[in-house]
Amino acid sequence: MTQTFLDVPPELAQVQALLAGSLARVEQRFDEQLASDLLPVEQLCAHIERYRGKMLRPSLVILAGMACGADTASDRHVTIAAVCEMVHMATLVHDDILDEAENRRRGRTVNHLYGNEAAVILGDYLIASAYHLCTTIESLDAARLIGQVSMTLCGGELLQLHFRDDYSLDQRTYFEILDRKTAALIGVACHLGARLAGADEPTQTALETFGRRLGVAFQVQDDLIDLLGSEAVAGKSVGKDLEKGKLTLPVLLHLEQLTPEHRGRFIDRLTSAGNASVPPDQAADVPADRETAATLRDELVESGAVKNARLHANRLVAEARETLRVLPPSPAREMLDLMARAVVEREF
Amino acid sequence: MTQTFLDVPPELAQVQALLAGSLARVEQRFDEQLASDLLPVEQLCAHIERYRGKMLRPSLVILAGMACGADTASDRHVTIAAVCEMVHMATLVHDDILDEAENRRRGRTVNHLYGNEAAVILGDYLIASAYHLCTTIESLDAARLIGQVSMTLCGGELLQLHFRDDYSLDQRTYFEILDRKTAALIGVACHLGARLAGADEPTQTALETFGRRLGVAFQVQDDLIDLLGSEAVAGKSVGKDLEKGKLTLPVLLHLEQLTPEHRGRFIDRLTSAGNASVPPDQAADVPADRETAATLRDELVESGAVKNARLHANRLVAEARETLRVLPPSPAREMLDLMARAVVEREF
Repeated sequence: MTQTFLDVPPELAQVQALLAGSLARVEQRFDEQLASDLLPVEQLCAHIERYRGKMLRPSLVILAGMACGADTASDRHVTIAAVCEMVHMATLVHDDILDEAENRRRGRTVNHLYGNEAAVILGDYLIASAYHLCTTIESLDAARLIGQVSMTLCGGELLQLHFRDDYSLDQRTYFEILDRKTAALIGVACHLGARLAGADEPTQTALETFGRRLGVAFQVQDDLIDLLGSEAVAGKSVGKDLEKGKLTLPVLLHLEQLTPEHRGRFIDRLTSAGNASVPPDQAADVPADRETAATLRDELVESGAVKNARLHANRLVAEARETLRVLPPSPAREMLDLMARAVVEREF
Repeated sequence: MTQTFLDVPPELAQVQALLAGSLARVEQRFDEQLASDLLPVEQLCAHIERYRGKMLRPSLVILAGMACGADTASDRHVTIAAVCEMVHMATLVHDDILDEAENRRRGRTVNHLYGNEAAVILGDYLIASAYHLCTTIESLDAARLIGQVSMTLCGGELLQLHFRDDYSLDQRTYFEILDRKTAALIGVACHLGARLAGADEPTQTALETFGRRLGVAFQVQDDLIDLLGSEAVAGKSVGKDLEKGKLTLPVLLHLEQLTPEHRGRFIDRLTSAGNASVPPDQAADVPADRETAATLRDELVESGAVKNARLHANRLVAEARETLRVLPPSPAREMLDLMARAVVEREF
């Protein structure tokens, strides 16, 4: 993350370098854990390495530890950082099946290249590897938290699937999905970073809260990128949410301010944009359908729904930064603060 | 398992009753662990309960414990038994996606009823629940073994996928797939049952060996049931392996004894049987294609390949039973012995 979208001021250069060094160790542990004597496993895992993105969760484990007094990332921090990234990676691989995505981080998705079957098993292999790696730090608490957060995560996915195409989804449920699907794991990353550094319970809880707020803001920003971003900048398929008829925060906020009649009409258009979605290789043949999605997007911008979604994300980030005050001032704390701000400023 | 295909002699009635009581506790723990405050999760898990089958892995955890001196199933045995069944169930749910199966244990599969997306997430939820439940017995060794065996299992699935439609598969690789995909978890179930009863290392290892041999025999028998069984008796889709062009032991043994020319011809027919596979609701329209599969099957019987596959399974069971001699005589040991014999005698 630090290398990709953070604009780091000179006074934080040292902590940034420490973080970069720790992340290199995390990557190594990640690769070692996935190493296999089976050729097909090796091949798929080599592909996964190219997936690696912002390393948000590992960065948070490391920085939360350092902000709670660890001079540098301990071996256990490195392991748990790799575990969190592996759990996340597993959900990405399975998500791409659900989303029928073809591109992820400037590469083809596993399901697209090797088929859904390989993607199902690879995701399973990643999650099994994460659990196994987790047991090597001799902390039942960590293993329990990782198991629990994985359950929470799946619950969020199922809730999201359940409400797909259901335009009566309310804000409470929307945020429940986000909190479970994305924020919970980010919260646990911060929580475990603090715990492994020997922080007391209230500090662990504060860091977890920091992570959860950040996580929700992160997902809202992800939805905004899918809505407004360009594939070239984002490095992954965009515009999928509208095509799938997925209710994102901008759509939700827009619907809330419409009269029942206009609401119904907007939903009709949203549904037809979804039905009109076609495989990208045939997209050139159907400019009219693409235009429907573009018109909807413009309307979300003009009505202020996009702006309000941004405001919401900014509010969450402000709350997240507030919780950091429980920690003594340190470069690591500043870095966490900087990351929180960057989450809503990024375009990829 | 005991209630479904074991013919239990009177002198084992008491241990059978103890086992049945323990399995009821396992089912309860299983259900409690999957309970969720989310309606969509509850609905899918309620469906899974109807999936429950022979309870082979839980039975082995319980009986291995009792054969190693535990009077009755401890609370930790019950938990690990539920964990093993949950890991197994997760693989079933994901396997059904890979196999495009429509029926499982006299019910519709999750993928068929709710779509592949729900099946992917439900499998993930089951595996996460298994890991979380596993941490409640406060044994890092157990958590590590369960994490490790899950990795082994996925490796087996990937290996199998890699060799699909590859008719150069040799016996060594075939048994490697079986050992990883099926036998490893059954071995761990026996291993953990012994360990949680305080058995020494050699006994744990012997029980693990027992489980692994049994597991391979079990899978060979499963393949025989898929090849020869009737859907009504098996309670699940049969004939899928030939349709998918999957290399099972009978096919492998048959190919080994053919001249290169006949080998090529048999493979051609196998491939065309696979290409001719159609959704069952259209099956009535294509009697000719069904006949190809039936002819292949008859040939496997006539050439002795089926008989040799059976002999192999029987040999494995004999070896498994031999390893039980390390244990002192007891009703639980007799019951394990009975189960080993039943594995190759069952038709479902």
